[in-house]
Amino acid sequence: QDAGNEAWLPSLMTQTPQEGFDLAVTIARKAVTTTQPNTDALHALRPAYAHDPDSLIEVSGVVATYFATIAEANEYWWE
Amino acid sequence: QDAGNEAWLPSLMTQTPQEGFDLAVTIARKAVTTTQPNTDALHALRPAYAHDPDSLIEVSGVVATYFATIAEANEYWWE
Amino acid sequence: QDAGNEAWLPSLMTQTPQEGFDLAVTIARKAVTTTQPNTDALHALRPAYAHDPDSLIEVSGVVATYFATIAEANEYWWE
Amino acid sequence: QDAGNEAWLPSLMTQTPQEGFDLAVTIARKAVTTTQPNTDALHALRPAYAHDPDSLIEVSGVVATYFATIAEANEYWWE
Amino acid sequence: QDAGNEAWLPSLMTQTPQEGFDLAVTIARKAVTTTQPNTDALHALRPAYAHDPDSLIEVSGVVATYFATIAEANEYWWE
Amino acid sequence: QDAGNEAWLPSLMTQTPQEGFDLAVTIARKAVTTTQPNTDALHALRPAYAHDPDSLIEVSGVVATYFATIAEANEYWWE
Repeated sequence: QDAGNEAWLPSLMTQTPQEGFDLAVTIARKAVTTTQPNTDALHALRPAYAHDPDSLIEVSGVVATYFATIAEANEYWWE
Repeated sequence: QDAGNEAWLPSLMTQTPQEGFDLAVTIARKAVTTTQPNTDALHALRPAYAHDPDSLIEVSGVVATYFATIAEANEYWWE
Repeated sequence: QDAGNEAWLPSLMTQTPQEGFDLAVTIARKAVTTTQPNTDALHALRPAYAHDPDSLIEVSGVVATYFATIAEANEYWWE
Repeated sequence: QDAGNEAWLPSLMTQTPQEGFDLAVTIARKAVTTTQPNTDALHALRPAYAHDPDSLIEVSGVVATYFATIAEANEYWWE
Repeated sequence: QDAGNEAWLPSLMTQTPQEGFDLAVTIARKAVTTTQPNTDALHALRPAYAHDPDSLIEVSGVVATYFATIAEANEYWWE
Repeated sequence: QDAGNEAWLPSLMTQTPQEGFDLAVTIARKAVTTTQPNTDALHALRPAYAHDPDSLIEVSGVVATYFATIAEANEYWWE
């Protein structure tokens, strides 16, 4: 169940905080698909978590941890 | 389900810690709406999480992680 | 549901670690009241979380994250 | 429900990592008693969390966050 | 239940962020197998967590914390 | 319920990342035994958490937080 060999994370650098947020979402999802590569199985789960407030809150918390790393990597996009 | 193209996060810089806290709340919510873009579905969930102490505590924990990043980005608003 | 306009968080600076801890508790609670501004609704929840060990443990974890930020902001109150 | 006025956290400095760990446990508990000051109520909860593996794991996670702050405050007790 | 003596973590250094992510997944799993070394027991658990959205979200959050450490260790793979 | 007086954590320094990981596991467990010193009670809990995927995932998350602190203390074992 490795993250596969295709290069999906060449760098942590982004132009803007918003791109950094999008990258955090991407990595957060990759950690899920690395654990459960079967996308059909994942899609079957969507109704459950997409309508469960605690799941949605937890997703935000996970993105927050990746975002912290990306923000620090980009030195907070200081001009 | 990308965060959409409208520029909602141009910068992490804020004038005050309070604005930094508000920005943390904004990003925390954006991570939810990125996962569940259907605002009607989200509003339907509000009675559940807004009256569940564990959900409210978890929201605060998520905001705390974003706030940590924003505080560091703003060098803790040291004068 | 913004944190309202009254200036409740002018600074992260405190004289002592204990004041820093109190500020962490304040911010943690503010994130809850920002999500659920109805204080009556919140008070109605108190019996639930105040007598639930997991809720109390989670509150401590949330305060810990805010405290980490405040401690770093105050350079750990090094003399 | 403030942490009360008695000076319980004068400093984050400790002589050793072990004392730093003990301080982390102290602060973690203080955040609980700040939320639930009624010690009888807390003692009544002990059988629940002290025999619940998830609660015990979560307690350890909370201590870990406080310990991270104290370790950094003490510059990791580098000689 | 120690992590065993075979050298599985000689270094935190990786060539790319993607390898850093893979290492984070490796360490996250190692913490599980250190707690539950019985791989048959672990495989029996897979259907449960691999089809539970909250478990998958939590796995991502755990990987995020290890990834933060590895990213910092590799100075964010700055060129 | 203090962590007891025997010196179990003289230092955060380790020779390798793997020893750092082992130390993180040690401290994570110590926080549990500090809360629940009765080892018989703890052993009775093992079947529950050792066969519960969410508990095992959470253990890994707790170890991750201690590991982050130890890795930083050891400057990521940079040669």
